[in-house]
Amino acid sequence: MPVIDYHCHIDPMEIARDRRYDNITQVWLGGDHYKWRLMRANGVSEEYVTGGAPDREKFQKFAEVMHKAPGSPVYQWVHLELKNYFGYDRELNGDTAGEVWELCNEKLKTLRVRGMIDRYRVETIITTDDPVDSLAAHREIAADPTCRVRVLPAWRPDKAMNLHKQGFPAYVEKLSRASGVEIRDLDSLFRALRRRMDYFDLCGCRVSDHGLERTPIPASPTEAEKIFARALSGAAVSQEEASRFQYVTLCFLAGEYCRRGWVMQLHLCAAYGINAFRQAAIGPDTGFDGIGASVHIPHLAAFLNETAGAGKLGKTILYSLNPNDTELLAVLTGAFQEAGFAGKLQLGAAWWFNDTESGIRKQLTAVANNSLLGNFVGMLTDSRSFLSYARHEYFRRILCDVVGGWMEGGRIAADLEAWGNLVADVSYGNAKRYFLEI
Amino acid sequence: MPVIDYHCHIDPMEIARDRRYDNITQVWLGGDHYKWRLMRANGVSEEYVTGGAPDREKFQKFAEVMHKAPGSPVYQWVHLELKNYFGYDRELNGDTAGEVWELCNEKLKTLRVRGMIDRYRVETIITTDDPVDSLAAHREIAADPTCRVRVLPAWRPDKAMNLHKQGFPAYVEKLSRASGVEIRDLDSLFRALRRRMDYFDLCGCRVSDHGLERTPIPASPTEAEKIFARALSGAAVSQEEASRFQYVTLCFLAGEYCRRGWVMQLHLCAAYGINAFRQAAIGPDTGFDGIGASVHIPHLAAFLNETAGAGKLGKTILYSLNPNDTELLAVLTGAFQEAGFAGKLQLGAAWWFNDTESGIRKQLTAVANNSLLGNFVGMLTDSRSFLSYARHEYFRRILCDVVGGWMEGGRIAADLEAWGNLVADVSYGNAKRYFLEI
Amino acid sequence: MPVIDYHCHIDPMEIARDRRYDNITQVWLGGDHYKWRLMRANGVSEEYVTGGAPDREKFQKFAEVMHKAPGSPVYQWVHLELKNYFGYDRELNGDTAGEVWELCNEKLKTLRVRGMIDRYRVETIITTDDPVDSLAAHREIAADPTCRVRVLPAWRPDKAMNLHKQGFPAYVEKLSRASGVEIRDLDSLFRALRRRMDYFDLCGCRVSDHGLERTPIPASPTEAEKIFARALSGAAVSQEEASRFQYVTLCFLAGEYCRRGWVMQLHLCAAYGINAFRQAAIGPDTGFDGIGASVHIPHLAAFLNETAGAGKLGKTILYSLNPNDTELLAVLTGAFQEAGFAGKLQLGAAWWFNDTESGIRKQLTAVANNSLLGNFVGMLTDSRSFLSYARHEYFRRILCDVVGGWMEGGRIAADLEAWGNLVADVSYGNAKRYFLEI
Repeated sequence: MPVIDYHCHIDPMEIARDRRYDNITQVWLGGDHYKWRLMRANGVSEEYVTGGAPDREKFQKFAEVMHKAPGSPVYQWVHLELKNYFGYDRELNGDTAGEVWELCNEKLKTLRVRGMIDRYRVETIITTDDPVDSLAAHREIAADPTCRVRVLPAWRPDKAMNLHKQGFPAYVEKLSRASGVEIRDLDSLFRALRRRMDYFDLCGCRVSDHGLERTPIPASPTEAEKIFARALSGAAVSQEEASRFQYVTLCFLAGEYCRRGWVMQLHLCAAYGINAFRQAAIGPDTGFDGIGASVHIPHLAAFLNETAGAGKLGKTILYSLNPNDTELLAVLTGAFQEAGFAGKLQLGAAWWFNDTESGIRKQLTAVANNSLLGNFVGMLTDSRSFLSYARHEYFRRILCDVVGGWMEGGRIAADLEAWGNLVADVSYGNAKRYFLEI
Repeated sequence: MPVIDYHCHIDPMEIARDRRYDNITQVWLGGDHYKWRLMRANGVSEEYVTGGAPDREKFQKFAEVMHKAPGSPVYQWVHLELKNYFGYDRELNGDTAGEVWELCNEKLKTLRVRGMIDRYRVETIITTDDPVDSLAAHREIAADPTCRVRVLPAWRPDKAMNLHKQGFPAYVEKLSRASGVEIRDLDSLFRALRRRMDYFDLCGCRVSDHGLERTPIPASPTEAEKIFARALSGAAVSQEEASRFQYVTLCFLAGEYCRRGWVMQLHLCAAYGINAFRQAAIGPDTGFDGIGASVHIPHLAAFLNETAGAGKLGKTILYSLNPNDTELLAVLTGAFQEAGFAGKLQLGAAWWFNDTESGIRKQLTAVANNSLLGNFVGMLTDSRSFLSYARHEYFRRILCDVVGGWMEGGRIAADLEAWGNLVADVSYGNAKRYFLEI
Repeated sequence: MPVIDYHCHIDPMEIARDRRYDNITQVWLGGDHYKWRLMRANGVSEEYVTGGAPDREKFQKFAEVMHKAPGSPVYQWVHLELKNYFGYDRELNGDTAGEVWELCNEKLKTLRVRGMIDRYRVETIITTDDPVDSLAAHREIAADPTCRVRVLPAWRPDKAMNLHKQGFPAYVEKLSRASGVEIRDLDSLFRALRRRMDYFDLCGCRVSDHGLERTPIPASPTEAEKIFARALSGAAVSQEEASRFQYVTLCFLAGEYCRRGWVMQLHLCAAYGINAFRQAAIGPDTGFDGIGASVHIPHLAAFLNETAGAGKLGKTILYSLNPNDTELLAVLTGAFQEAGFAGKLQLGAAWWFNDTESGIRKQLTAVANNSLLGNFVGMLTDSRSFLSYARHEYFRRILCDVVGGWMEGGRIAADLEAWGNLVADVSYGNAKRYFLEI
């Protein structure tokens, strides 16, 4: 089946330019904090992780981690990628690092970004983009007849909502410029966002995304207005105040998404940069994050209730980084499903630290227990690497094992065709319908 | 083995009248919010769920959900029920809906409520009843020599404890009338409840039950008295105040239950009606509920400690709807077990959203890990349908697989007789001893 | 492989004296609250649990529990111990209790404490010791050439940190005497602790340990100073204040541990003595404990961040009694790993109520998912019994099944030697490097 990768963090300009890599270290270790964490867990010095050590030596250090990493998804991703992109079917380890290095680098002379995308029949890639982004790369790709993959933007307005973080007033100025709306209050903020949504929509955007460290706290527009005014003035705003502001803004945005037929994705409970000293030294998204406290279910339910009651709750996917939330969110979606679209609310795929064999089984089980597995929109890479499409294969293998196991165990009818169709839908067809056919 | 269904929500009058159904939609889709949620998750319009669409069309919509529902307990219950009540052993789906409809409706001409009960050798059914209930149906059944099943009431005084909910003063008036005690303060409330317990006891009641959305908060009788007075006056009472009142009232009731040899069941952490708009339109118990925050373990421990210390903690079963509480509650029971009765405190069976294959395995594992599986009182239906006794079969199959798996895997002695006896006890014997032999 | 039991609660004097037991009840039921809880869960009267009933009768009551206990770790430990210490390979139950009693007691005439230790090739035992302890037993053992096992102390200063508990000022006086430092404020407290750490270090101590019912709350030294002064004066201090004091003290201690190359172990989320009435009657550590609320991840992260940022975070093991914390803590360790030592931060082995087959699998999976299984320091007994070394065998069997299962299922290369080495490291080699080679 082809792949629709509906959520990732790749740089679309690398597709536009069809970037070439000099060696496997650049592809694998250039921006992958999963691998960096494993290396650090093995006591490898930062010089060989994100530092200035030679690429061949970095690769050696990484290869040596493999014999400590059975059961890790990284071990499995690495070997799926070696097999399917490079034709290598032995094990990567300290002894074989040399031959793998040679083989991969030879292949990388001709295997560029677009080739990697084609290898897994990736039809559509949905990136993650800021409201002020020009989407130039997306337009360039759309205008390039030689590029087979469709690359669409996703709307991620986190910076417009994190008014407790440094640089918020400066960001608002950027947003004013990008939208042509002078932002002075909540109303003008919403008008500016609406203008940018119009532009994103023109560029093919059909998906939004939010990263919310804490569950938004129910609040009134009046409260939000006051908090926003204080943040604009450059005054400090607490995390709790930010969460109240976010609630109101998210209610507004939910209505916009619903009206446009966009999907709303909420990524909850990440705890970014908990190792603040290391993150300050090396930068964000480099492996110093963790899992935050559980979703505040009553607050999240209040948000869904308010938007649903106002007819403003459209297609919505709920992700939590906290594995204790899996069943709770699956059940929550079940209370807010509505007529007219099969699987309108979804429990999101196993995310980040949960993107493991046990995490994927748990997520699939939660959906099957409390919703309809046959409507699930399936997997995404959430990745910065063009080799990560193997994660879709990883997911599909587990999905087949789960559903096949039910059939072999007599839990479901012995109807290979019916369940084969379901697996195909979860792997591809549902995402196509959900994200691309409005 | 016969069945003792010690907790359910069926209407006993339907047994007294030996209700007949016109068709399978009436039996299956008349009041089953599990099935309604799956239909809504498939985008089915409310007209076909709880609305006015013809029964045959409703059945078609439901049958079409099955091919989306592998892994769902509903898929498995449906097929167990089709096989064991109707002799149908193919799959229900959109194509076979017609023949299933004909077959079931033909059988339903003769298969009435009492026949359904007999099909699974149900010996005893314990219903869920309000203190003001006359228990007329129970008395009618008891007086009917043609009715083989014993139907006993369970005492569920939620309305007397939810003083933060609308209509509380009106309910107190009803309770005054039913008990013949004019309720003006905590003391007269307790006297009124005691009188009704006397009556319930006379009618064979041996079990109580409480639905507590939040864990009761330790409080003094003086505090409870003040909160109660305010509620009686019609003033608004917060959820937190209600929880304090409930603590004190529950301590009183625990003593009464203990003295009478009644079982105390606590059902914790449900979040009722979180989709308030839809629930307002369609009514309570129609599928708009969710899972609440985890049990507050220190508060629950304080309650058990206070009642145990006063010699007022009798047989007690703890259920939480939140799956993260399973191991915690199993361990909690272990700190409060007492001499004289094997398995006095119990972790309740996998409840509601947890009544799935994975949920049942998790519950059994928690009991086995931290208590004695051999003393577990086993399964209940918690259902509104007379076809749901198949859930006991579902549970027993999983139980056999769990215990048999331990034996085959060498975890326990290869003594089929001993473990067979244990399975029989958990399936039937323990419930009989726990609920019916005081 | 030999055993390094790096955390337990045995009395070292029993090794020094090579204690002999009269019968199996003394060994098994003398101090084992796991077994006591199972007996109580079976309704056994306290007389036969911790009371004055004859040893043979106590044993009978315990043996009769076995047929209720399939799936319990106690069932499995019992049978591993019977097989490996006593050569008995049938099942213990009510019928065989007599022959087991005879057999074990006969063996116990010659099988003394040191023999039990040798049976599992235990090389090193690390006990749990209070800062005021003289460590006389440790010195006695070290000076005894006939004793093959190395017995080292671990530093557990809970009493110096629980200033909300009764008897704190009296304990501080003891600590003053033991250290020769008059403790009047935070500074002198720290000096006293430092002196005792010097002494412990001389006696071979390389490991510290903390039991923290609640996660320490970030606070300043000034706050801690005030709280400490109030506690010293005999005034009541709340649990929350204690947690603030503990934060500051733990930061100080972490620096000391790091400087000395000691391991820091944090045991979080136990709820001791929740059945207060029974504990008051029978004493602490007799089976009336439970699981507390989850780790407060942001507070724990703040502690790690503060110490790491100051270069004071050394080898650290995080345990939580709450099973919902397993994945969260595994991920947390991943954000704080540092160069120079493979596996510096560790998710602790499945602890206490989690020391079950399912709990061990969950812990191993969490480590494999989010860290490097190959660096895990493996199992401990956490026990008061010299027969408990069988728990290492129990763990190793599960470990082999987990890793072997991955190999058979094609998740990892078919390289028996590599994974055999990993299993050996996790079973023994890693603990040796982590705890004994500084």
